[in-house]
Amino acid sequence: MNLLKIQLALDRLTIKQAINITEEVQEYIDIIEVGTSLIKEFGINSVKEMRKSFPNKIILADIKTIDNASYEFEMCFNAGADMATVMGVAPRVSIEKCIEIAKSFKKEVMIDLLNVSREQLEQLKLYKNAILCWHLSKDMQEYSTEKNEFKSYRDSKNRFAMAGGITVESINKLYNEETPEIIIVGSSITKAENKYLAAKEIKAAALKLSIERVNNYV
Amino acid sequence: MNLLKIQLALDRLTIKQAINITEEVQEYIDIIEVGTSLIKEFGINSVKEMRKSFPNKIILADIKTIDNASYEFEMCFNAGADMATVMGVAPRVSIEKCIEIAKSFKKEVMIDLLNVSREQLEQLKLYKNAILCWHLSKDMQEYSTEKNEFKSYRDSKNRFAMAGGITVESINKLYNEETPEIIIVGSSITKAENKYLAAKEIKAAALKLSIERVNNYV
Repeated sequence: MNLLKIQLALDRLTIKQAINITEEVQEYIDIIEVGTSLIKEFGINSVKEMRKSFPNKIILADIKTIDNASYEFEMCFNAGADMATVMGVAPRVSIEKCIEIAKSFKKEVMIDLLNVSREQLEQLKLYKNAILCWHLSKDMQEYSTEKNEFKSYRDSKNRFAMAGGITVESINKLYNEETPEIIIVGSSITKAENKYLAAKEIKAAALKLSIERVNNYV
Repeated sequence: MNLLKIQLALDRLTIKQAINITEEVQEYIDIIEVGTSLIKEFGINSVKEMRKSFPNKIILADIKTIDNASYEFEMCFNAGADMATVMGVAPRVSIEKCIEIAKSFKKEVMIDLLNVSREQLEQLKLYKNAILCWHLSKDMQEYSTEKNEFKSYRDSKNRFAMAGGITVESINKLYNEETPEIIIVGSSITKAENKYLAAKEIKAAALKLSIERVNNYV
């Protein structure tokens, strides 16, 4: 039983800003996510630069592949990523190609569950090695009233992560049996006035949850 | 009734290669598509460079937005794109945000129908100003046996485009009533030995179809 990991999502930043923020909070961060906006704005160089600056951290490239799976996943892993994302709404052939490429590189796949149907979710649960990421999108956070709840995981045996508007409060509200493997945090850290303190508080909340989980498990 | 347009999809190339190919075939091309792979590999600079090299051509940024709609669409239009793509499988709030941003820039939205359900397709048909793009994905072309047929459009009143493995032969096979507004061609041109000739043949086939369409319409 592993401790819950914190993934720092870096979005809507320059590469320089992303490096500076990560340097400030790296002590409390397990995974650095090079956000989709960084990749689309600055290209795969964003992943290479983060790898160069943080040679010993786990790096996830949020490439959000939906087609051209080999090309995109090979590009991410060759740039130094340890994990890359594919959309759960992608054709199954693309998802399986991503899993195959990741396996050949001995790297990890995260499947982004954004907007998947119940039927697609049931199919995706068959990929036991992939990390399923329950994802409340930025646009849904900003333009709709939906909240980040993830009831559908209670009885799941899958590895999973959660993303989208997560704060210390939302971590504290998680039921023990729902705790994911990875909690993905973006603006609660990157937009905080005191980013170091914000990351520390997030990490503390996650550790508290991890300890409860271990206690219940023993 | 407009003539059918040819969109050249530039993928899995360097920016320099993309510029060279476009220069060679531009006489027969109506829209330059900066492919997803160029954007993810080289960033939004790929769109800026194509705009610089081809100041008078229509440029589509195949950004494949699925979240963060304002940021991505504003980035594309500010980089010089005339059109940008959003995934039909994206949350509706993202698609509508893309349409809103495009309208404010007086630019166009293409909705990529990759892997949409019938129910999603019916919803998307309500967006009369957007161009719906029937899309057989690269991965489906390469790893599955599915072919690019698009029966579902016969009675549609929408603007639409088609993409995925299109050749002169597949254009010749189109029924008149199925002819889209835009035909998207990638490797049939970019990987042809004689790219100029390949583009010319594609354009001739498209013109033939356009003329038939006009004759039937009159």
